[in-house]
Amino acid sequence: MAQTVVMKFGGTSVGSTERINNVAKRVVAHRKKTGDDVVVVVSAMSGETDKLIELCRKVAGNSHNDREYGQLLSSGEQVTSALTAMAIQREGVKSLSLLAPQIGLKTKEIYGQQLIDSIDAAAIRNYLDQGMIPVVAGFQGVDESGGYTILGRGGSDATAVAVAAVLKANRCIIYTDVDGVYSAAPNICKRARKLQRLTYEEMLELASSGAKVLQARSVHLARKFQVPLEVASSFNDNQGTEIVEEYDGMEDAVVSGINCRTDEAKLTLRNMSDRPGVIARVFEGIGKLGINVDMIVQAQGAAGKTTMSFTVPEEEAQLAYEELVKFVNAEMPEGSVEIDRNIAKLSVVGEGMKAHAGVAAQMFEVLGREGINIDMISTSEIKISVAINQKYSELAVRALHEHFVENRAFGEDRGR
Amino acid sequence: MAQTVVMKFGGTSVGSTERINNVAKRVVAHRKKTGDDVVVVVSAMSGETDKLIELCRKVAGNSHNDREYGQLLSSGEQVTSALTAMAIQREGVKSLSLLAPQIGLKTKEIYGQQLIDSIDAAAIRNYLDQGMIPVVAGFQGVDESGGYTILGRGGSDATAVAVAAVLKANRCIIYTDVDGVYSAAPNICKRARKLQRLTYEEMLELASSGAKVLQARSVHLARKFQVPLEVASSFNDNQGTEIVEEYDGMEDAVVSGINCRTDEAKLTLRNMSDRPGVIARVFEGIGKLGINVDMIVQAQGAAGKTTMSFTVPEEEAQLAYEELVKFVNAEMPEGSVEIDRNIAKLSVVGEGMKAHAGVAAQMFEVLGREGINIDMISTSEIKISVAINQKYSELAVRALHEHFVENRAFGEDRGR
Repeated sequence: MAQTVVMKFGGTSVGSTERINNVAKRVVAHRKKTGDDVVVVVSAMSGETDKLIELCRKVAGNSHNDREYGQLLSSGEQVTSALTAMAIQREGVKSLSLLAPQIGLKTKEIYGQQLIDSIDAAAIRNYLDQGMIPVVAGFQGVDESGGYTILGRGGSDATAVAVAAVLKANRCIIYTDVDGVYSAAPNICKRARKLQRLTYEEMLELASSGAKVLQARSVHLARKFQVPLEVASSFNDNQGTEIVEEYDGMEDAVVSGINCRTDEAKLTLRNMSDRPGVIARVFEGIGKLGINVDMIVQAQGAAGKTTMSFTVPEEEAQLAYEELVKFVNAEMPEGSVEIDRNIAKLSVVGEGMKAHAGVAAQMFEVLGREGINIDMISTSEIKISVAINQKYSELAVRALHEHFVENRAFGEDRGR
Repeated sequence: MAQTVVMKFGGTSVGSTERINNVAKRVVAHRKKTGDDVVVVVSAMSGETDKLIELCRKVAGNSHNDREYGQLLSSGEQVTSALTAMAIQREGVKSLSLLAPQIGLKTKEIYGQQLIDSIDAAAIRNYLDQGMIPVVAGFQGVDESGGYTILGRGGSDATAVAVAAVLKANRCIIYTDVDGVYSAAPNICKRARKLQRLTYEEMLELASSGAKVLQARSVHLARKFQVPLEVASSFNDNQGTEIVEEYDGMEDAVVSGINCRTDEAKLTLRNMSDRPGVIARVFEGIGKLGINVDMIVQAQGAAGKTTMSFTVPEEEAQLAYEELVKFVNAEMPEGSVEIDRNIAKLSVVGEGMKAHAGVAAQMFEVLGREGINIDMISTSEIKISVAINQKYSELAVRALHEHFVENRAFGEDRGR
């Protein structure tokens, strides 16, 4: 019985006409070998979207109209989808490019972001039934008035997962310039290993802790619609990483990945009056500015005074800092505000943590042995994150990787 | 009473973000000054369409699928229409870009060319009624299945005229990099003068005789729907050239323009048997190859033999030559075929010729005085064309311009 597979190629994978021809060869070879129904989703050629953004900035300055921005940026994927369809035709297989309005890919704005609302699956299925390989332009949608919208960073992955969901596809493969998800960043940790399998939840925690290979958004979508995801290289045939709901032995290894991100800053409010509602008002102000808060730590001081620290994305740190200063001046003249841009957020992630206690203790011990102070801590069911001084980032990743992954702390290898 | 004006800007006029900002300023200034309802039509930035064609050639080789070619090439106008709408917004006027599917601009294929079949005028009018300046992407249409089509060379002019026609606009202004239609090419003839007014018919004859400023196609369309056309420069405020059905004094000057094109070649069939049906079979073969024949001359020779010459576009001359050789070999072994690539087609055009005889005689006299041989002749009601040796092109244009335009042969100046 023929399966349906969605194959998504990112900007680097379609970055030149030569690469587009390679994508076509790969897609056609897959179909010939497996007999699968194949749908392709493509991003814009690498650099093209940035070029369009620069044109926009030159014409419109720093503020632009959302509708026109969508009409402009969607042209990048229009170009690659048409070229890819031509390249597939040249390989002897019927193909056509499909733009958002041509498959009724409608979006809705939720809190300033365009989310996919519906896709006309029958339109795509119809072309598959005619023996074609449809090439869907990623990243783009249409609003209720028929104007183009764009899905934001990682949007083409979301397109691929959503197309796979409405087609009830058997697999959605995200081809990119790395060949899978690694236990740590290979450029930091030479002994990082590629993970064969991950759960959606692990992938989500890895994404939020700094793994760049997949955006949390498309993993959420894949989990919601139970789309089996796969990350693989578009430049070789190596086995990639599968991301699924669950798999045998998924708790065998406690830690699957170690990540570090250095793009957050820490804000600290000292000497706050410990009155009810004060913290709520602080975060209300930050929230109104559209700033996401990540880790939060509060410590009780002497005489009803308290100190609170939290992290925000570095690019929004200045704005948050100014908001806090305003707040302190207005409501809490005895308080003070500090900003620390030199933090790193270090995370260990693994399904196995659900079943094994003691990971945190070992993590602190390893870091302590290396002389690394822990500044803040946050945990989830399958993740422990700590804030440390940025200069120790690489050292910390390597030490934790050695302990948890290479030396298989907690016994067995993950067996995958 | 507010008028409706369609303003069309070609590739050079929107060739950079700076120029797009200038277009926006110009459009907004026009609206503020006149209170007109303004619709803008834009081409792709100059060079962009060629870049897309080159990408296509690299991916698809020399043959490409029409649908995908349309999906690909339409992206160029998508970019400029969005940027132009943004630039107009920045000038403080509401604007939006409109792509072919967004205004129901449908095309039909007639003999391999996409012609505009219908446009949803109400969709455009609706935005005008909201006080907006809509920016329509030129050159593009959609077929009955919703795929993009393209209108071919000069297609954006056709878009502008068709939009003006369905809106019953009072004027359609084609802004380009020259500031009007001249009595001869200014680079050949320094004393060429800009024409204030022309009839559709004169413009059509000028276009077919080599004036590049407007394609015959959009002039045909303008005449059919009686859209008053205007050609003007996008870089200055000089008065342009109006093209209308008729105007006062249009027959005062006999000759309005002198043109020369050197992109045709002459084929000659010598020593043909003068049997019925032979000529029909020759042109049937040429027609099947999709080659357009321009001038034709047949001369009776001795003993039932005849010689025939005709001109074709130079890029198709080799193909036509080979077809003739095949024909001669198969059916007329006594015949012979010659090709002459060094011809120029020289034309004088003017409404006034309808009323004045003797233009041909004067033309031949002027050319004879310069020692220029006439090889072929063809005439219409308002045009006389002759084929001459290419090396005399500039000399011939200057001599005829001096005689007919500068010295006002046939009396009165055109008074315009």
